[in-house]
Amino acid sequence: MSDIKQIPVGVSARHIHLSKEHIRILFGEGAELSELKPLSQPGQFAANETVAVHGPKGSFAKVRILGPARKATQLEVSRTDAFALGLKAPVRESGNIEGTPGIRIVGPAGEVTVEKGVIVAARHIHFHTSDAERWGIADKQLLKVRVGGERGLVFENVIARVSPDFALDMHIDTDEGNAAGVSTGDFGEIIE
Amino acid sequence: MSDIKQIPVGVSARHIHLSKEHIRILFGEGAELSELKPLSQPGQFAANETVAVHGPKGSFAKVRILGPARKATQLEVSRTDAFALGLKAPVRESGNIEGTPGIRIVGPAGEVTVEKGVIVAARHIHFHTSDAERWGIADKQLLKVRVGGERGLVFENVIARVSPDFALDMHIDTDEGNAAGVSTGDFGEIIE
Repeated sequence: MSDIKQIPVGVSARHIHLSKEHIRILFGEGAELSELKPLSQPGQFAANETVAVHGPKGSFAKVRILGPARKATQLEVSRTDAFALGLKAPVRESGNIEGTPGIRIVGPAGEVTVEKGVIVAARHIHFHTSDAERWGIADKQLLKVRVGGERGLVFENVIARVSPDFALDMHIDTDEGNAAGVSTGDFGEIIE
Repeated sequence: MSDIKQIPVGVSARHIHLSKEHIRILFGEGAELSELKPLSQPGQFAANETVAVHGPKGSFAKVRILGPARKATQLEVSRTDAFALGLKAPVRESGNIEGTPGIRIVGPAGEVTVEKGVIVAARHIHFHTSDAERWGIADKQLLKVRVGGERGLVFENVIARVSPDFALDMHIDTDEGNAAGVSTGDFGEIIE
């Protein structure tokens, strides 16, 4: 089994997921997100719409919304961004927002302050079930992924997420992408 | 030889080294840098003085100067910072600035535009000669260094720099520190 487990890398810039209720407050009654471009995961898209977010120390004027609407609003930032906002955002898996800092979010039609939801996303790989089976990888397994080049490094604790709804893609944030000198479209290799 | 090669980590924020001539232009005739605090390397210090730097896309209002004066002016930024400035800064060893982008630097007494000198510093370890001898490490050797924790990773291509004037310290930038979840005062381990 000398099958090389090569994984496309996607570097995620800061972005926000919004609940239906918050889309209504921020963009107005009846407003819906419109698609700017599709993302690697089926059904997910970058919206044309952006919001401003304001932390205790700093702000970002234009944060891209990723759709469709989610059950809970969640802002995903790099650790660099979290320092700029003045927030101690923990490294978390998407959706696990208990005990995380809140943030003030401002849209064209209104604003909302959430009590929680700011995270640094834990590095992870989306596997389609068939990829995971072929490579013997289980959901939630922690993997090591090497990226080469002059800033080559090995990411540890990369969480495997397996679903028939996923497309093969490794998600890291801009700090991780810049530390490794990689951009979206580059490749990593699962080494363990 | 099961000696664990533990290395203190120093995370370098963006900073600038200035030539004597540029200190004169930026701070005025006869001006000298004053010490805010010493750095890990003997004789090096963070100065009280700062400058503004202006790139084609963005600026930083307060960039810390590290002293003493150097032969050539050099701005060291993270890849995140380079994108914000709008510059394609290459990964380089300190002092190797041929073919790198320039930058406009503004001080209280004047300004200067350098034609080159903006780099992303290559990750490296300063070894006192005695540390290098004890561990069998040669100047310019490329090492692998592991840092643990939830964002654990292994940095490859870490350049060894050996001198009787150095104190043991690994230097990475803020992207690398944030990607690994480490701060100055944490430790890494040379694994290869």
